[in-house]
Amino acid sequence: VDLFNYASDLKYGELHLKVDPQIELRAIVAIHNLKRGPAIGGCRFIEYGSTDDALQDAMRLARGMSYKAAISKLPHGGGKAVIVRPPNLSDEQRERIFSVYGEFVDSLGGKYITCEDSGTAVSDMDVVAEQTDHVLGTSTAEGGSGDPSPFTAFGVRRGIEAAVKHRYGRDDLDGLHVSVQGVGHVGYYLAKELHELGAKLTVTDVNEEAIERCQDEFGAERVAPESIYDVDADIFAPCALGAILNDETIPRLKCDIVAGASNNQLAEDRHGAMLLERGILYAPDYAINAGGLINVAEEYTGYDADAAREKTSAIFDTMLAIYERADKENLPTGVVADRIVEEELYGE
Amino acid sequence: VDLFNYASDLKYGELHLKVDPQIELRAIVAIHNLKRGPAIGGCRFIEYGSTDDALQDAMRLARGMSYKAAISKLPHGGGKAVIVRPPNLSDEQRERIFSVYGEFVDSLGGKYITCEDSGTAVSDMDVVAEQTDHVLGTSTAEGGSGDPSPFTAFGVRRGIEAAVKHRYGRDDLDGLHVSVQGVGHVGYYLAKELHELGAKLTVTDVNEEAIERCQDEFGAERVAPESIYDVDADIFAPCALGAILNDETIPRLKCDIVAGASNNQLAEDRHGAMLLERGILYAPDYAINAGGLINVAEEYTGYDADAAREKTSAIFDTMLAIYERADKENLPTGVVADRIVEEELYGE
Repeated sequence: VDLFNYASDLKYGELHLKVDPQIELRAIVAIHNLKRGPAIGGCRFIEYGSTDDALQDAMRLARGMSYKAAISKLPHGGGKAVIVRPPNLSDEQRERIFSVYGEFVDSLGGKYITCEDSGTAVSDMDVVAEQTDHVLGTSTAEGGSGDPSPFTAFGVRRGIEAAVKHRYGRDDLDGLHVSVQGVGHVGYYLAKELHELGAKLTVTDVNEEAIERCQDEFGAERVAPESIYDVDADIFAPCALGAILNDETIPRLKCDIVAGASNNQLAEDRHGAMLLERGILYAPDYAINAGGLINVAEEYTGYDADAAREKTSAIFDTMLAIYERADKENLPTGVVADRIVEEELYGE
Repeated sequence: VDLFNYASDLKYGELHLKVDPQIELRAIVAIHNLKRGPAIGGCRFIEYGSTDDALQDAMRLARGMSYKAAISKLPHGGGKAVIVRPPNLSDEQRERIFSVYGEFVDSLGGKYITCEDSGTAVSDMDVVAEQTDHVLGTSTAEGGSGDPSPFTAFGVRRGIEAAVKHRYGRDDLDGLHVSVQGVGHVGYYLAKELHELGAKLTVTDVNEEAIERCQDEFGAERVAPESIYDVDADIFAPCALGAILNDETIPRLKCDIVAGASNNQLAEDRHGAMLLERGILYAPDYAINAGGLINVAEEYTGYDADAAREKTSAIFDTMLAIYERADKENLPTGVVADRIVEEELYGE
């Protein structure tokens, strides 16, 4: 893949690469778009098969962050960092890598704000924070906002409420049946919110303890992981895997609404159209699961949990606007969400 | 070529890429090394066969600038920018490209200082200067230092004087015979300096006017371009083409010293050893031709022509130190120059 062609296709933006052969640092900072404000996005620290893989991963994910930030009306663009994890990493080398990475982020002058992602931990962000202010998701002792999962779950609940309002004309979830795929983390917090609002739950997970906790605390029914697509519920909330809305699963669904926390739910874009044809209202994942981002972004101006919750609550309005425009234009909701973002980022 | 592997092999550094699909901007800023100070280097604006070619060109050239700056003891690292020239460029598009490029350079906060190079003109640098202070080589009306060729020529003269001192134990050039390849620009100014110091000149060029000017002004002899390698002179000064010291030409040389302004004179590194075996003293090109860089770098702190000339004059000491160490260690002068740089850049 030609780097500049790939970048142009994704409407970049900027790429910043830092190499330090002595400590085996190979870092990429992809900044997709700065129109709405400084780019925000996590820093991955995983092994890659090739440099091209790492570059494309960073660029693809940063673009996703642009879309998530824009649909959420955050004053931020999308960014993503990838640090290629060297084999046989020592603790000392890890610390040096994140320290030099922190200097590099600082040298970008604030146009990219980094935070945790796959392979990085709060402790890495604390090392980064010694070198730059442009970091979020440090430990709470360092001013961080802590675990974002409850915020993500709260945002998904608000998106579900908007879907229920749009689909059923109802303002409450009382007695509605929700099937939840994955209740280990965000899914658990979502189940808790829905239970408190009177919803009936059917859950699944690969972890037995996670299931039992939902049975005990929320009186949830359980099904085997492979049966979650067959549950006759009003709402299906995928909170575990990507690409679970595909040619095999969509014909099986018995729900009216798909609205959950997991990323990249549609195996391909055309599966959004397939859901529309089946009359199932789909909540575009990057819009409904933005609560974690909204929460961590709140750190940027000094963390305030109440303000973060209020902004996350507005996911209701964001989702309702998507559902209504999708109806009006008879388009898949995912297409509408993308259009709203693209009009904002690339319009005059 | 794997980008990170290539970067690691060259001991990078940083790479910064800017893409603006709307105006077809594809820019690369390669920053090789920042140990001695902000990176300095020209901005190329030419067409490339592929993005890989453009990336490698930028990286290779920026490394060369690191070596040139370090051997010249400048408080600068090496950088280079490449902007891929779009086909069918309009004047308006050109101005927008250099304006956005200027913003990008500015956003790097001064760690890269740009200037003219192949395909860019003083007028482009004036556009860049509207967006950033980190630009040199603007028009003299904007504080630029003007044509660097006389400074490059003066530095080469100083390097020739050091070679004469080292080789013949002489403090003057009176009566020495110098053959000059290329007298269109830097070579002309060099011929002028050498003539004023009493040297006898044989010149060649592909341009008839350039030759005639040297005949008229300096009483130079002339030879056909292909015969310059056969001239029985004390010193051969290549001031035109690269790779002219090769398997074919080196056996023909009748001089004691090769010292000229052109870049990349050795076709391959091993030709430095070949010159050593033949007992010919070779002045490493990037060290002897640094006068232009020394002069333009002087703009960075407010241009002072006298200070620039004094610093350029010190090329004498730089070259003498290289020649002496090469003798002592019985190594090709090019190897010694590289070692001096690498001890400085990568040593403890």
